[in-house]
Amino acid sequence: MEDKLQQLKTKLAEITDLGQAAALLGWDQQTYMPPAAAEARGNQQAALGRVIQELSTAPELGKLLEDLKPYGESLDPDSDDARLIKVTARDFHKATCVPTSFVVEFAQVTAMGQQGWIEARQKADFSVFQPHLEKIVDLRRQYATFFPEVAHPYDALLDDFEPGMKTQEVRDIFSALRPQQVELIKAIASKPQVDDSFLYQPFDEQAQWDFGVEVITKFGYDWSRGRQDRSAHPFTNGGSIYDVRITTRVDPNFLSSMLFGTMHECGHALYGLGASPALDRTGLEGGASMAVHESQSRMWENLVGRSLPFWEHFYPRLQEVFPGQLTNVPLGAFYKGINKVKPGLIRVEADEATYNLHIMLRLEIEIDLIEGKLAVKDLPAAWNARMKDYLGVTPPNDVRGVLQDIHWAFGGFGYFSTYALGNLVSAQLWEKINQDLPDLDEQIRAGKFETLLNWLRTKIHTHGRKFEPQELVQRVTGSKIDPAAYMRYLHNKYGQIYGL
Amino acid sequence: MEDKLQQLKTKLAEITDLGQAAALLGWDQQTYMPPAAAEARGNQQAALGRVIQELSTAPELGKLLEDLKPYGESLDPDSDDARLIKVTARDFHKATCVPTSFVVEFAQVTAMGQQGWIEARQKADFSVFQPHLEKIVDLRRQYATFFPEVAHPYDALLDDFEPGMKTQEVRDIFSALRPQQVELIKAIASKPQVDDSFLYQPFDEQAQWDFGVEVITKFGYDWSRGRQDRSAHPFTNGGSIYDVRITTRVDPNFLSSMLFGTMHECGHALYGLGASPALDRTGLEGGASMAVHESQSRMWENLVGRSLPFWEHFYPRLQEVFPGQLTNVPLGAFYKGINKVKPGLIRVEADEATYNLHIMLRLEIEIDLIEGKLAVKDLPAAWNARMKDYLGVTPPNDVRGVLQDIHWAFGGFGYFSTYALGNLVSAQLWEKINQDLPDLDEQIRAGKFETLLNWLRTKIHTHGRKFEPQELVQRVTGSKIDPAAYMRYLHNKYGQIYGL
Repeated sequence: MEDKLQQLKTKLAEITDLGQAAALLGWDQQTYMPPAAAEARGNQQAALGRVIQELSTAPELGKLLEDLKPYGESLDPDSDDARLIKVTARDFHKATCVPTSFVVEFAQVTAMGQQGWIEARQKADFSVFQPHLEKIVDLRRQYATFFPEVAHPYDALLDDFEPGMKTQEVRDIFSALRPQQVELIKAIASKPQVDDSFLYQPFDEQAQWDFGVEVITKFGYDWSRGRQDRSAHPFTNGGSIYDVRITTRVDPNFLSSMLFGTMHECGHALYGLGASPALDRTGLEGGASMAVHESQSRMWENLVGRSLPFWEHFYPRLQEVFPGQLTNVPLGAFYKGINKVKPGLIRVEADEATYNLHIMLRLEIEIDLIEGKLAVKDLPAAWNARMKDYLGVTPPNDVRGVLQDIHWAFGGFGYFSTYALGNLVSAQLWEKINQDLPDLDEQIRAGKFETLLNWLRTKIHTHGRKFEPQELVQRVTGSKIDPAAYMRYLHNKYGQIYGL
Repeated sequence: MEDKLQQLKTKLAEITDLGQAAALLGWDQQTYMPPAAAEARGNQQAALGRVIQELSTAPELGKLLEDLKPYGESLDPDSDDARLIKVTARDFHKATCVPTSFVVEFAQVTAMGQQGWIEARQKADFSVFQPHLEKIVDLRRQYATFFPEVAHPYDALLDDFEPGMKTQEVRDIFSALRPQQVELIKAIASKPQVDDSFLYQPFDEQAQWDFGVEVITKFGYDWSRGRQDRSAHPFTNGGSIYDVRITTRVDPNFLSSMLFGTMHECGHALYGLGASPALDRTGLEGGASMAVHESQSRMWENLVGRSLPFWEHFYPRLQEVFPGQLTNVPLGAFYKGINKVKPGLIRVEADEATYNLHIMLRLEIEIDLIEGKLAVKDLPAAWNARMKDYLGVTPPNDVRGVLQDIHWAFGGFGYFSTYALGNLVSAQLWEKINQDLPDLDEQIRAGKFETLLNWLRTKIHTHGRKFEPQELVQRVTGSKIDPAAYMRYLHNKYGQIYGL
């Protein structure tokens, strides 16, 4: 069996290596690729994707996994090898349920869909995107039929991002959360508003960049295994645990974009860099799920990066870098400004209090589309009605409304809710961390992040994809994903800021 | 047969797409890859190499080529399809001679070898590189054994860079050339030396970069299909005809490094960008050979870039960029300075009169290594002895000696002689171009390069890999590769500069 396990690992190493090559192609596409190379890059990605799909669904791989099943069950269930056999069998099952012809069609339709989405945005005309999205929704519904065992068709989609998670679970969590968030926002709206105008000034781009680098270097980002570049949309690229790159964007007239974007991506990267080297090249070196990934990025961005202790350390330095802009802004005013709550149209610009509402709206729309209750042509109206209902705002056009995110264009149904779940997990973890590290605030106030990072590494990062998200959260915090900690966090934070 | 041809093209497109992915991994390795990712990159390249090797040697591909052979022979022998079938059959034969396990090992060993070379240079310690190079030489000798039909084992290596070319042909050419070059250098040494001290001053790096960009933009480099980055060793990366990137290096205290390096790589890139779009994704879109490639890079670098007409156009602009450094250097002195002949240590800094001697030294060492006459551990001594013998200089350390080039680190035995052959071809082409375009000097003096580039595109670039190098040179110039034109060029040029 040791021999078969070795064979399995060899096959997985090859698949992982090719996946890392594909990741680099993706990174390059968004950073340095010459514009005329887009079609060629599409062909390269398609060729690599075809090879990876073939290897991932090869009958010999299935045979090995079947042979290894009893052996895996005989091992310590938490051991790397037991989990490797189990998780790989799950991946293999999912991959083989989907016909190759579907995979090819889906790749083509979503490639065209992304073109259609770009064109629709340029023309501010949803009807340009509509036929593409209709095909994509059809294919997503078809995808669900490949998994007849699921209780709800949306479960099949969600599972790609949150292994083991069910639609009903997410709905229950969001149902508990929504009224509390809406109530909080109302309470905040009744109070005097905070001023954040100082964030909207000219800030030298290189100085911004350098400050961001200074911060994430202190966080513990390992530059020998990573780098930072610019891209239109910030992202983290997980090549291998020896190469986890981030990108950021720098707005010369708005400080928050670089500042919180850089910390956010660094959070993702620290997770990717923290997987146990024993999981390297097994396919288990990624994160447990998108929500757990997001819990890390949002933690460094918000729980750390928008906290008062953090700025007690970094604000004097930031004032030194931008004296003209910030000398007359005291720390307290800066802290309030970066935490201003204001219901808006755009998800990626939303504050911590309103963010999740953007997500709930999307989840409900996705479920309605997949259930067939909502037609794609009625989507803009449904979007705008819910925006009014949840956030009290109405998009002036679809570009700032239903066309704002690329996710549906690449077929990423099931993805959005991971953002909100990540927020919840980040707060659950934060409560646990503060129990384990009672002097955490003081450490942060001193610009020390090693203990925090080590805690995260030991409890979360090192495990890679060994555990399903609910299992991991349960193991670490003692309960499954639950909105209570996040609401406590919001009430506490905004209670202080807005004097609720 | 049309159907089988289409099947062939589909297979070749997939292989080419994957090859382009591998090329991007190589580009990234030398530009932006985090240092700790070297081993992971080696694994990725190995995995890709294995897949490419498998597809390139698949029996179905062989069967298709066999079936298509009579069809190919029935077509116009110069047509794309006839050549596609013929060249692919040659590639297939070569690929099937080499076991996949060898290809995989070679990719891994050379990936590590490149890292070892970098480390050895940093530490100025050949012994760090020695174990890597020993493995690489072993593998290169083993490679030759896969081609028992060759007259000399080195033929097998040479053929990878110069299809159809034999070791004996190169030796014959070099034997004819060496005494003439040595004699010329002696004649020059007996004359008053020219001053090039003005090249060794502080030159602002960004201003250097910008000037290089200005020059190659005028050459016709298409920025929508390319880009320029920095790397330790300048190179051109051919991804697809829609993505041919170059790198350069900028020495803040020496102008020539950026200047001629940039033009050199641009010459390579113009070749890669000029292949007929009909050859895209066939595997025939590269260059005929490395020597023909080098004929293009050396032409733009030297025949154009070190010529008087070129500087009659560009020198006023260069003086404008660097007034403090160049205002007191008249054009004539500048022209002489950039063409100064001085036997030196570094190949890439060598002038046109001594350059080929650097190559001959390397060729002889390579042949000795492959024949087993020279051990890797004795390489520094052998190198230094030949440097003394051919050029009368001795490296102060191995960084400026045997460690100066990356080629052996990536296993590129057989590569170096293409540089010298490229010089010869560039002069042969230049004589022909001047016959066809009698006002070429005036065009260059006016900063116009379109007619020259079009000539090269039509006669050379568009054909990609359709013709073997000797065949192509014969078709375009009327004779095979021959040192006479190059010697005429050197005698004429240095005759004027040194008053011989």
